Amino acid sequence: MRLVTYERAGQPRLGLLVHDRVVDAAEAAAKASARPDSLPDSMQGFVEAGQPALDGAQALIAALAGDATALAASSIPFSDARLLAPIPRPARNIVCVGLNYAEHAAESRMSQGLPEYPVFFTKPPSTVVGQEAIVPLHASVSRRVDWEVELAVIIGRGGVDISEAEALEYVFGYTVGNDVTARDLQNRHQQWYKGKGLDGFCPLGPCIVTRDELPDPQRVRIGLTVNGESKQDADTGDMVFSVAKLISVLSAGMTLEPGDILMTGTPSGVGFARKPPEYLQAGDVMEARVDGIGVLRNTMGQK
Amino acid sequence: MRLVTYERAGQPRLGLLVHDRVVDAAEAAAKASARPDSLPDSMQGFVEAGQPALDGAQALIAALAGDATALAASSIPFSDARLLAPIPRPARNIVCVGLNYAEHAAESRMSQGLPEYPVFFTKPPSTVVGQEAIVPLHASVSRRVDWEVELAVIIGRGGVDISEAEALEYVFGYTVGNDVTARDLQNRHQQWYKGKGLDGFCPLGPCIVTRDELPDPQRVRIGLTVNGESKQDADTGDMVFSVAKLISVLSAGMTLEPGDILMTGTPSGVGFARKPPEYLQAGDVMEARVDGIGVLRNTMGQK
Repeated sequence: MRLVTYERAGQPRLGLLVHDRVVDAAEAAAKASARPDSLPDSMQGFVEAGQPALDGAQALIAALAGDATALAASSIPFSDARLLAPIPRPARNIVCVGLNYAEHAAESRMSQGLPEYPVFFTKPPSTVVGQEAIVPLHASVSRRVDWEVELAVIIGRGGVDISEAEALEYVFGYTVGNDVTARDLQNRHQQWYKGKGLDGFCPLGPCIVTRDELPDPQRVRIGLTVNGESKQDADTGDMVFSVAKLISVLSAGMTLEPGDILMTGTPSGVGFARKPPEYLQAGDVMEARVDGIGVLRNTMGQK
Repeated sequence: MRLVTYERAGQPRLGLLVHDRVVDAAEAAAKASARPDSLPDSMQGFVEAGQPALDGAQALIAALAGDATALAASSIPFSDARLLAPIPRPARNIVCVGLNYAEHAAESRMSQGLPEYPVFFTKPPSTVVGQEAIVPLHASVSRRVDWEVELAVIIGRGGVDISEAEALEYVFGYTVGNDVTARDLQNRHQQWYKGKGLDGFCPLGPCIVTRDELPDPQRVRIGLTVNGESKQDADTGDMVFSVAKLISVLSAGMTLEPGDILMTGTPSGVGFARKPPEYLQAGDVMEARVDGIGVLRNTMGQK
């Protein structure tokens, strides 16, 4: 199942993708006489509602997929939808992982080797923007803004002390993330929150793919282009710590909540490590891609 | 003005302190015939409501302070109130500052000197607990749990690129924080989120003192005892970066929001830097104190 958050009459709404159309989940569920149970109108509400909501949405998608008239009446073309980030305002900071691909760890730190434990830090909800959003360049604050494509995990079920073996059962789904980073601030402030946390520095989208459609998150191609030129291209199998391991380690003594977002690290090819270093400029177009999910496209702003 | 969040009929409610009593702000405002405007029933709502809410609360406090009968009828003794954290569930992670007192920077890092820029990191909302709450020891995850008393700033007005000169105008008030830390995890994971982020690791309280009652946040005594023995005792004048400077630097390119919490760093005397090192044990009682605000008291749990 593929889900989006899109803007409708100025409000964020949960949308289901059916063929090439976006169905307003709550409205369509309320209309469908066979389904008296309503669906939540927000992604966060849907994630919290758990399996019953997934079952309801699946039934609704199946019904609409086979009924062109009903589908046309309760949807808009995907290409017309103004997408927002799948969870436009997360209920707390996004958790990120640093140095989680061997080649990126090497390009970043030269001789220090691979981290023995995951390197967790966060980005505040105010960084979150969606598909096609302009990412501010923040030229008055940073001269070294860089890209980082990442596989982003959406937690479905809350829990603490989650075992690695069961960890993927806590996943709701996946989306594409871009951990935009001001390298000068990242270094200057030692801890990475400031350099990672500027407004608009966390594009997410275009959609969430539920876990069943990506059964092995360690076998996915991931990449990023700037102005059409490939900068990052890797396989999630090269992660130092797998998605399951990250969830297990993160949740030790630390309760995960439905709707939590975990970004799983970026592969090699970021700008600061290139020779010579490359940083984003006004008007640059980033396309972050995770195969099986989609392409997240954002343009750098003029300031 | 002194405000608390307390539990009433199982719900968190905003309370105003009048003499030694806690007044339910929303209920008392609704009752007071002279004040048709209602007050919010939550601290977050009150902070967001800004100056009109402050004015309304001030008028209500003045009226009740002079009317013993009305006060008795609309309040409970402070000693009977079950306090929660002033903002029990912040809308995003709490921002903290590391190494912000010279002596603590020295005890922590020996030869590296003072940081040139503030070291910002975060603690998730799931760390927040209130006065008298049990702080989990997390013995299965850490063997080195440590204390850190801090002056905590509550942001009142949102803003970005705030100048140092105007920064204190964005402050709603202050409370006492304890940045409880698992030192082994803090070191092991390089970035500090994991070691700082375990459930229950951010006691806050007992009350919020509005900015007007603490006009100079750099002239305040701050300290912490464990089982009655003094461990930390310092003056906020020894901060490397002042509250105003921290707000200014943090807000550069990064929008602050009403209700944001900024912990301003801990002075020297933490456990890991003592000779020999000391860590918290089950049953240990921590009393974190900021003069002019109060004493935040918490006991370490059995596990």
